[in-house]
Amino acid sequence: MVQPVGTSTTNVQSNSVGAMLDPRNLLNHYRNALDWDLLRKFEGVSILNTRQFVRREVVELAKFSALLEQTEIASSHPLDGKICITSFFEASTRTRLSFEAATLRCDGRVLSVPDGKVTGIAKGESLSDIGEMFNTYGDLVIMRHPETTAIEEIRRNLRLPLINAGNGTGEHPTQALLDWYALLKWRPDLATEDFTGDEFHIGIVGTPRDMRAVKSFMRMSMLFDNAIGKITVVSEQKQPLGRELAEDVENSPIEVEIRSDMQSVLHEFDVIYMNSIALLEGSYELLGKEFSLDANSNLKENAAILHPLARRDELAASLDRTKHNLYFAEAAGAVFMRQALLVSVLGRIDSLPDSIIYLSS
Amino acid sequence: MVQPVGTSTTNVQSNSVGAMLDPRNLLNHYRNALDWDLLRKFEGVSILNTRQFVRREVVELAKFSALLEQTEIASSHPLDGKICITSFFEASTRTRLSFEAATLRCDGRVLSVPDGKVTGIAKGESLSDIGEMFNTYGDLVIMRHPETTAIEEIRRNLRLPLINAGNGTGEHPTQALLDWYALLKWRPDLATEDFTGDEFHIGIVGTPRDMRAVKSFMRMSMLFDNAIGKITVVSEQKQPLGRELAEDVENSPIEVEIRSDMQSVLHEFDVIYMNSIALLEGSYELLGKEFSLDANSNLKENAAILHPLARRDELAASLDRTKHNLYFAEAAGAVFMRQALLVSVLGRIDSLPDSIIYLSS
Amino acid sequence: MVQPVGTSTTNVQSNSVGAMLDPRNLLNHYRNALDWDLLRKFEGVSILNTRQFVRREVVELAKFSALLEQTEIASSHPLDGKICITSFFEASTRTRLSFEAATLRCDGRVLSVPDGKVTGIAKGESLSDIGEMFNTYGDLVIMRHPETTAIEEIRRNLRLPLINAGNGTGEHPTQALLDWYALLKWRPDLATEDFTGDEFHIGIVGTPRDMRAVKSFMRMSMLFDNAIGKITVVSEQKQPLGRELAEDVENSPIEVEIRSDMQSVLHEFDVIYMNSIALLEGSYELLGKEFSLDANSNLKENAAILHPLARRDELAASLDRTKHNLYFAEAAGAVFMRQALLVSVLGRIDSLPDSIIYLSS
Repeated sequence: MVQPVGTSTTNVQSNSVGAMLDPRNLLNHYRNALDWDLLRKFEGVSILNTRQFVRREVVELAKFSALLEQTEIASSHPLDGKICITSFFEASTRTRLSFEAATLRCDGRVLSVPDGKVTGIAKGESLSDIGEMFNTYGDLVIMRHPETTAIEEIRRNLRLPLINAGNGTGEHPTQALLDWYALLKWRPDLATEDFTGDEFHIGIVGTPRDMRAVKSFMRMSMLFDNAIGKITVVSEQKQPLGRELAEDVENSPIEVEIRSDMQSVLHEFDVIYMNSIALLEGSYELLGKEFSLDANSNLKENAAILHPLARRDELAASLDRTKHNLYFAEAAGAVFMRQALLVSVLGRIDSLPDSIIYLSS
Repeated sequence: MVQPVGTSTTNVQSNSVGAMLDPRNLLNHYRNALDWDLLRKFEGVSILNTRQFVRREVVELAKFSALLEQTEIASSHPLDGKICITSFFEASTRTRLSFEAATLRCDGRVLSVPDGKVTGIAKGESLSDIGEMFNTYGDLVIMRHPETTAIEEIRRNLRLPLINAGNGTGEHPTQALLDWYALLKWRPDLATEDFTGDEFHIGIVGTPRDMRAVKSFMRMSMLFDNAIGKITVVSEQKQPLGRELAEDVENSPIEVEIRSDMQSVLHEFDVIYMNSIALLEGSYELLGKEFSLDANSNLKENAAILHPLARRDELAASLDRTKHNLYFAEAAGAVFMRQALLVSVLGRIDSLPDSIIYLSS
Repeated sequence: MVQPVGTSTTNVQSNSVGAMLDPRNLLNHYRNALDWDLLRKFEGVSILNTRQFVRREVVELAKFSALLEQTEIASSHPLDGKICITSFFEASTRTRLSFEAATLRCDGRVLSVPDGKVTGIAKGESLSDIGEMFNTYGDLVIMRHPETTAIEEIRRNLRLPLINAGNGTGEHPTQALLDWYALLKWRPDLATEDFTGDEFHIGIVGTPRDMRAVKSFMRMSMLFDNAIGKITVVSEQKQPLGRELAEDVENSPIEVEIRSDMQSVLHEFDVIYMNSIALLEGSYELLGKEFSLDANSNLKENAAILHPLARRDELAASLDRTKHNLYFAEAAGAVFMRQALLVSVLGRIDSLPDSIIYLSS
C-alpha cells in the first residue's frame, strides 16, 4: 500500500481529491495493528504543545483516528457520563464545533463557553479561579485563549486534563495532529523509519514565530526527519522562526530555508502548508497575490496542499476539485483525531466495542 | 369525530382554547392508522420549501406529530447517536430552541451555532466551505439565513440533509407544516378529499412576496383546495403576492382576493393567519390598530386565529382565553412536528417503540 | 464526628482548606440516613425563595448533595429524557454552567439561552408568552432575570416547575442552599436541635436589601437559630435590611446588629459571608480596603469565609491556602446541590441506583 514517490497511481489521485482520503490506507499499511498500550498512557495527560510528542505517538493517534473514521462507534457510547468544557476566550466556531462534535459523537456531554471574553466569566476574574471552578463542572477542559500565558495560569488550580486549542502566539497542537493525520492517510510511508523514497520538501507559508498553527505544524513535521529532507518557510518577516524554533532547527537534520518569494519556489514543494492569512489584518493586504494559490499555480505534479481553513483569497476554490486538495481531507479528519484524543485522555479506550479493540490488537 | 362547520360543540370549544387541542382528534379521524411507508420515504430528504409537498404528505406528517404529542418517546431514544447542527445566521431563539428541543426529546445531540453572523464562522468564509465543514460535524443541518440564495450556496458541498428554517424572503416550510398541524388537530376534516362542509375562507394578514412564513403558509394552504374556497390576502402593498405565487394562484381552483382593509373583511374569515408584524420595522407603525386583533374584534363565531409568535401589539392577550386562540396550540405543536421531521429525515422511524408502530399501522 | 466549637482538630483543619471538605462528614453525622420521603415531596415544586424552606428541608437537601458528591451516579442516568431550560436574561456564566453541569452529570439535556436580553426572545415579547413557549420545550426552567417581578410574570402561563437563579433585588435561593451545604459539611452539628457549643456569630458583608444572594443567605441562616446567636450585617447603607427582612428579624430569636466598620468587628465572626462587591460598580471604589480580606486580616482562629465568587480585590488569593477558605468548598459543592434539587424536583429520586437509596434509608 506504500505509494512510491513521484508515481501518480490511480489510487493516489482518488485519494488526494477533496475529502476522499480512505482511512484504510493508513490502517492497511500497519496491517490494522494498533499499539493500544501506548495510547492508554494518554489517560489524564494534558495536550499542551507539540514538544510533548514523539513520532510514534503521532502515528498511533493517527491510526486510532483512522479506525474511528471508518467505524460506527456512536452506539457504543464511549464517553457516556463524561463532560468536556469547551472554553473559548477567543471565538473560533470551527475549532469549537470540531471538539464539540467529537465529544457528542462519542456520547460525551458538552459544557460550552463560546465566547469567554464577553460573558461574566472573565470580568476581572482570574484564570486560576476559573480553573478551580471547572474542577467540579466537568472532566476535561478544552481552552483557546488570546494570551500565551493562559495555559500556565489556568493550570494553577485546575486538576482536570487540559487540551490547548490555541494559546496566543504559543501552540495549537491538535491542529498539527490533524494536519499530520491527513498527511499519513495520504502517504502512510512518511512514518516509516526506513523511508526509501525521495526525501520530502515541505513549504510552509506563514510566520511560525507569531502564528501558533504554523509553529505547531513545523515542530511536528520535524519529528518526521526520516522522510523530510527540507522545509522552506515562506514569510515576509525578517526572523520568522523566533528563538525557540530556531534552536529546534539547529538540532534537526532537516535543512531549513527561509524565503520570501513563494511563487518562485512553489514548484519544489511536495507539501504546501498554507494558512488563513487573508483573514488576518495587515500583511495580506500588502502581499496580495504573491501569497495566493489557485489551479494555475506552478505546483509539482503530486503536490498536496494543506490549509487549516477558514480561507479567503489566499486559496482559490479552483483547487477544490484537483488532486492537490488535501485540505478538505484535513478538515474531514479533524473530528476523528479529536475523538481519538478525547477517548484516550479520558481513559475510555476500553469502552469501545470489543470488535474494534480485538480487530486492531 | 368530524366537527361540522358552524356547529359549536363543547368539544370544539374546549379544543380551541389555548394549548388544549387534543392530538387524538386527528388520530381518531384516521382510526389511528399512519402510512409509515410514505413517511419512510423522507429519509435523507432535505426540507427546503413547501412546493416539494403534496397534501397527503402534510397530513401524514401531522398525524405522526399527533402520535408523538400523545406518547412518551424519550425513553426509546430514537435519535441516539445522531447530531443535528442548528446553524442560525440570523438569530431566532424561538425557532432554534424549538428544533433543539425536538432533537433533545428524541435523544439526539445538538451542535448549536446560535448566531453565525457574529462568530468567526462567517468572517468572509463562503457558505459552501461551511457546508463542507458540516459534513463531518453532524448528520443533519438546520439553517436560517438572511439571504434567500443561502440554501443553494450551502448545498454546493453539503452532503447532509438540510432543513430550511427560513431563508431571506424565500420560504419557512416547517412553520407552514406546524401551522397546518394545528389546523388539522382542530378540524381533521379539512384533509378529507370529499369535504362536505361550507368551504373555508382563510384570511392571511401580511405580504407573502416578502414574508417567508406568510408565503409558505399560503402555498401550503393551496394544497387543501378540497376544503378551502377562498383566500383573502390583507396587505397594504400593491402586489403582495409576487410573481411566483401569482402563478400558483392562477393554477389553483381557490379564489384569491387582495384587500387592504382588514377590519371590514374580518367577520368573513374561518381562519385568520396573523404575523409578527409589530416586531418588524416600518409598516406597522403606519398601519397601527387597523391590523390589530383583540377580544372585541369583529370575528366569526368559530374563527380560529393562527400566529407564529413572538407577538407584540398586533395580537392582544385579551384573545388568549377565548376559543379563537389557536396560536398557543400552534406553538405547542411545533416541537412535535419537528420531531416527526427529524425522525423521518434521519431514518429512525424504526427506532420508535414497537407499540407505537404497531398500534398505528 | 461532631466538631466541638473552638477546638481545632486536625480533621477540621484539613477540612477547611480549599475544596477538601469531605461530604462524609455530614453523612456520618446522620449515620448515612436520609429522609427520602421528605425529598420526594419536592417533585414538581418550584424553588422561588428561601422563605419556602424549613430547616429540615435544607438539611436533607444538603445530605442528598453530600451523597451525590461522594458517589458516581453518571452511569445511572437519573435524568434520562428530561430537558432543563437555562434561561438567563442577565448573563452569569458561573451560575448557568453550574446548573448545566448538574443537569448533564445526571444525563439530563440542556436547552440553553445564555443571554436572553440580546436574542430575539426578548424583543418586546412578554415573559408570559415566553413561559407559554417553554411548556413544550422542556421539563423544568431555570431563570435569572434583572427584574424582581420576572418570576411572577413568567409563571402566568408556565406549567413547568421553575428554579429562580436570581431575580433582580429579590432572591437567589439555590445560592443560599449551597452556602449552607458548605457550612454543614464543615460543621454538621450546626443543624442539631440541641446545639451545645458556643453560639455562632455570623458576619455578613453586604446590603441584603439590594443584593439577592446576601438576602437569601441571611434569611436561610435565620432558620438555624438553634446554633446561631448573632448576625452582624456590615454595610455602608443606612437601612441595609429593607422592610421585609427587618420584619423577619423582629420575629427571630437571633440578635441582629448593623455595623459599617468591618475591620473592627472581624475578629468576632465564626463565619464571614463576603460578596462579589468589587465586581459591582460604585460603592466598592469608595470603600476600598475597608471591606477587603486577606491572610493578614484579624480573623478568629477557626473562622470560615464564604464567598459566592467570582471575586476581585475584596478577597485576596493569599487566603486560598489557609484554613479560613471555605469558598472553594462552597463552589465545589454547587454542582452537587443543584443535582440534588434537579433530581428531586423532576421526580427522579427513584431512578438513582438501588445501592444509593438502600444504603441511606
